[in-house]
Amino acid sequence: MQSATIDLAKALISRPSVTPADEGCQQMIGERLAALGFRLETMVFEDTTNLWARRGEPKDGKPLFCFAGHTDVVPPGDPADWDTPPFEPTLKDGYLFGRGAADMKGSLASMVVAVETFIQAHPELPFDIAFLITSDEEGPFINGTKRVIKTLEQRQEKIDWCIVGEPSSTEQLGDVVKNGRRGSLTGDLSVHGVQGHVAYPHLASNPVHSAAAALHQLATEQWDHGNQYFPSTTFQISNIHAGTGAGNVIPGRLDVQFNFRFSTELTAEQLKQRVASILDEHSLDYHINWTLNGPPFLTEPGTLVNAVTQAISRCCPYTPQLSTAGGTSDGRFIAPTGAQVVELGPVNATIHKVNECVKASDLDLLTEVYVACLQQLLEDETNKPC
Amino acid sequence: MQSATIDLAKALISRPSVTPADEGCQQMIGERLAALGFRLETMVFEDTTNLWARRGEPKDGKPLFCFAGHTDVVPPGDPADWDTPPFEPTLKDGYLFGRGAADMKGSLASMVVAVETFIQAHPELPFDIAFLITSDEEGPFINGTKRVIKTLEQRQEKIDWCIVGEPSSTEQLGDVVKNGRRGSLTGDLSVHGVQGHVAYPHLASNPVHSAAAALHQLATEQWDHGNQYFPSTTFQISNIHAGTGAGNVIPGRLDVQFNFRFSTELTAEQLKQRVASILDEHSLDYHINWTLNGPPFLTEPGTLVNAVTQAISRCCPYTPQLSTAGGTSDGRFIAPTGAQVVELGPVNATIHKVNECVKASDLDLLTEVYVACLQQLLEDETNKPC
Ligand SMILES: [Zn+2]
Ligand SMILES: [Zn+2]
Repeated sequence: MQSATIDLAKALISRPSVTPADEGCQQMIGERLAALGFRLETMVFEDTTNLWARRGEPKDGKPLFCFAGHTDVVPPGDPADWDTPPFEPTLKDGYLFGRGAADMKGSLASMVVAVETFIQAHPELPFDIAFLITSDEEGPFINGTKRVIKTLEQRQEKIDWCIVGEPSSTEQLGDVVKNGRRGSLTGDLSVHGVQGHVAYPHLASNPVHSAAAALHQLATEQWDHGNQYFPSTTFQISNIHAGTGAGNVIPGRLDVQFNFRFSTELTAEQLKQRVASILDEHSLDYHINWTLNGPPFLTEPGTLVNAVTQAISRCCPYTPQLSTAGGTSDGRFIAPTGAQVVELGPVNATIHKVNECVKASDLDLLTEVYVACLQQLLEDETNKPC
Repeated sequence: MQSATIDLAKALISRPSVTPADEGCQQMIGERLAALGFRLETMVFEDTTNLWARRGEPKDGKPLFCFAGHTDVVPPGDPADWDTPPFEPTLKDGYLFGRGAADMKGSLASMVVAVETFIQAHPELPFDIAFLITSDEEGPFINGTKRVIKTLEQRQEKIDWCIVGEPSSTEQLGDVVKNGRRGSLTGDLSVHGVQGHVAYPHLASNPVHSAAAALHQLATEQWDHGNQYFPSTTFQISNIHAGTGAGNVIPGRLDVQFNFRFSTELTAEQLKQRVASILDEHSLDYHINWTLNGPPFLTEPGTLVNAVTQAISRCCPYTPQLSTAGGTSDGRFIAPTGAQVVELGPVNATIHKVNECVKASDLDLLTEVYVACLQQLLEDETNKPC
């Protein structure tokens, strides 16, 4: 159970890089990449450290392949709840335990070792390779990938193909690849009424009463039917509050926070308008603050999806399923630049939980799959009709 | 603007008896009553001081008339918001200012002076007179009137007629007399769902979504149509809460607190059953804790209502309106014993507010009205066919 990938994964896990800390992880990765001819750029924004490493010049006319990931991890909670200390990587029963083992220091190790292996075999390449690594994916994602992409766009540096190392697999390594993600739109709704005493309701106007039917309609609305790649758009109320705490006071305001996960069948603007028209139907006096956490993105079958599918089929006894389900990822910041983006990483069963772990042999297999992806892209580029 | 009533009201207001404190008010009243032949009983329950003073023996076979009231006041808030210090009674422009002036130290002063006046004229009476005074009417009303009444019931001491000095008047002294109050029933409802991530709603069950239609139905239900004495029963949601605060978590539980103000057309049991059947219709997984703050009570026209109406008509150029509107009062604890109960006190425009005040001449008028009530009862008793 010794391998270059597992050794690097262990070295990364032993750094307690709770978001937005990096704790030297990017430097460790950067040194390995520099040795392969990558030029390193550390971009520090506020509390966040980002690494942009590129092998090949931006103006060399070659397409750019990028591995994207994050060195930060979610807090471990009480270490006493863990069977082994969260920041002491531990191999046990064929699994590597530690915070970040699956999300996503294991993937980072596989990426680095894959690139080392691949470049050793193919020092001259028809495409450039980059790493985009942040330390705020688990945090507010303001100063991480989003700002690196903004910087790249400002100097017209463009990614063509991007593999994000998020743990996409559900049962076995590579069984699921994400080729898109739903959009996420949050609404902070305040419904205004008139505060008063419950004994004198004619002098008050209860916003909970006036909003109940509208909330029911929002909760039962069919927003779309999804499409070939996306499930139907969903609406969920995450928080609702009204009242002073006193039992005899009619509240003057109702606050509701809700979230859409939406398909490419709808835009954020359309959702906003449909919510407004439902609230207007019920003659509510309201205000909404909208936050677009990310638009939906989709990478349709093409060069990258094909390379990833081929690579998995070659290394594993199954073909992957393409999916756009699940939460958001930093892919949402990269896809809008026009890049093809897929997410491919370890099994996600234990992420963000105590005793986070990854099958040790899966990390070596992931390294192989990443090498095979690069190999497939190389073949495609080499055989491309001129 | 000097009178026995105003002097006593000022002495009471100068005691900062913020609920449940009495600050010697009951002793001050007790001394005056003892001088008239009342036997005093101080009943201390936990943090609350109560005075039960009776003139005449329980077993003397005579009916019992009772003045009921409270010496505690609501907190004044920031004294800087007042034009005059809240516990320095101040006569200005014909009004007496101070916390408790209207609710209800003014009434207490009128009651004491009325009884002094009346007994001086009629030392021998065909009915007994009592005072039931508590210091927790503005608080949780657990250790006040409720427990005094329980003590009296245990020894089979019964009130026949009771005037509660709550500020019942709206524009002019005596324009409104309360001959009953609506019941108050509070429900603490928890609707259970299954917590989850907004990205995976199929693994969760949102209690806000499942409850919205039921809440709408509860808010729009016609519970009854009231009756001759009571307005329609009202339902108000006072508090609603769900959510962890995080925008990406589907809440696992919704908490809703609501309150009924109900007429004598319905019982608390009927309301509970109707709420349960609405919630069941919507297949909710829920639990309710019920608190009956007080059943509705009604004193139909009879000896006491007649005496009060006659007294006001004799002292003022109008006849009072009978009403059951507004909040609860300690009358709800006295009426269930079978007593006739009415509430008659000053204008309530400034109660529980800064610069609480009462028209000084209204206090003297209230004393006159109380005397006239006693006078009318005396006439009724004297002329009663044997
Ligand atoms: Zn991650
Ligand atoms: Zn009061």
